[in-house]
Amino acid sequence: MTDSPRLFPGKITIFGVGLLGGSFALALRARGAAVTITGWGRNEERLRQAYDRGILDSFTTDAADACRDADLILLATPVDTFRDSVAGMCRHLKPGAIVTDVGSVKGTLVSRLEALVSGHARFVGAHPIAGGEASGFEAARADLFEGERCIITPTPKTDRDALRTVTAIWESLGMAVEQMSPDRHDEVFARVSHFPHLVAYALVNAVAGHDGAVLGYAGSGFRDTTRIAQSSPELWSGILMANRDEVLAAGSEFRKKFEQIMNALAAEDRASLKAALARAQTARASVQNRKATGE
Amino acid sequence: MTDSPRLFPGKITIFGVGLLGGSFALALRARGAAVTITGWGRNEERLRQAYDRGILDSFTTDAADACRDADLILLATPVDTFRDSVAGMCRHLKPGAIVTDVGSVKGTLVSRLEALVSGHARFVGAHPIAGGEASGFEAARADLFEGERCIITPTPKTDRDALRTVTAIWESLGMAVEQMSPDRHDEVFARVSHFPHLVAYALVNAVAGHDGAVLGYAGSGFRDTTRIAQSSPELWSGILMANRDEVLAAGSEFRKKFEQIMNALAAEDRASLKAALARAQTARASVQNRKATGE
Repeated sequence: MTDSPRLFPGKITIFGVGLLGGSFALALRARGAAVTITGWGRNEERLRQAYDRGILDSFTTDAADACRDADLILLATPVDTFRDSVAGMCRHLKPGAIVTDVGSVKGTLVSRLEALVSGHARFVGAHPIAGGEASGFEAARADLFEGERCIITPTPKTDRDALRTVTAIWESLGMAVEQMSPDRHDEVFARVSHFPHLVAYALVNAVAGHDGAVLGYAGSGFRDTTRIAQSSPELWSGILMANRDEVLAAGSEFRKKFEQIMNALAAEDRASLKAALARAQTARASVQNRKATGE
Repeated sequence: MTDSPRLFPGKITIFGVGLLGGSFALALRARGAAVTITGWGRNEERLRQAYDRGILDSFTTDAADACRDADLILLATPVDTFRDSVAGMCRHLKPGAIVTDVGSVKGTLVSRLEALVSGHARFVGAHPIAGGEASGFEAARADLFEGERCIITPTPKTDRDALRTVTAIWESLGMAVEQMSPDRHDEVFARVSHFPHLVAYALVNAVAGHDGAVLGYAGSGFRDTTRIAQSSPELWSGILMANRDEVLAAGSEFRKKFEQIMNALAAEDRASLKAALARAQTARASVQNRKATGE
């Protein structure tokens, strides 16, 4: 399942057993990884349900208990909870343990977590590009990560062995791992993910605000365009806040292109309008469906 | 195949044998309709290919020839060509022939076409809500219309028999037919279709304009949100122009909701941000996939 099975941690604790945390557990099991998986969460009943489904080997709502024996901790709660979680767990970590995450925001968060963990354990930032608007372990799938990309965001302080281990784990789950600086990560994902969510939410609010009946005529185009507006407001308000500067910058870039098209339309300038649409069509045609192309 | 088969026209001419025109022909054949189908287009080679595929019984690039014997003419070229097409065909139409269309814009276009056709034949505006970003008869499918909605836009001048015939045809192809005034149609579809296309095109231009590499990290969220930006710039610049006032109004409505979210984010007002996202999530959840729900 990997070129370096000895790199594999034996005891894994997942903080937050939702879509990503649950899929991580199922994917490890499906690949036959020799791991025991503990789940931590705030809601014991939910953890018990995940345990009953075979996602977890054990579970606890006590963070100290959850960390004590773990070789690897995966942070899979909303990104805005990471700092408090890590601050709380630090002194309970086994020396040399690896703390990693599935968060959609990196940037300054990585250096903060790195600083908190420093002296206790080793932090490696990761962002598996997988998921969707569904949430909860009920939506978890063993093949969620397969064929998708995982961005790992090392810094000069990142422990090389820990980096190799985290890389090996995601590769073993079928992901193409790529390294990026935490800041570049946030610049890129503000544009291709975070800001598009903001646009989708705004578009739904605009259409729903026009009159009550209009949304009833939505076809597949509108449904696809706004599918991500079904995503959790709790999770996504946290992501937008955590990557605020880059999302606002992406918003300024969008405003320019949006007003360019609106102005061409207002001026009945068909040539400029068509040219702007054609630029977008060409750029969009370059975006491949990774799974479909087997890239 | 319908409650009133006698309403069915025997000779049908399709102006523009693309995704919609081609699917109309295939759908009629699949239902066993006793019709002969002539295709008109500018490109003889393309018409011949559609004929070779069994989509057409005959074809011509001569509009007069195309119309002369037709009981029903379906306009399935881009909406901005309808006026010239209809102006050119009028004096060749068989008295009492029905002229109808599949255009995404109605409004004043309907009254103009109605006026042009008046005295020669009978016009009924229709908009089957089906299609997608693909184009050309190669993408045509016999089941394209099945389970989807068709908006028919009669006016006080619409001939009642022609209205019944056009309704019966689309119902026979599995569509749920609904009547709406031409102006209300344009108000609704500016919001759920035309303006969302403009947003998707603008979003792609913004992301592509940031730097060359960013688009390479697009995941399924971005791909779905911008799928409709793959649509034909020729077709969609025409649609946006034809429904300009309503699209610009939808743009103003969007700007307000967009800036509301941007402002909450800039002000780090998490509560307002989350509330705006939650409103969108709730509204989006009310949008059903018609085919999936079997509505």
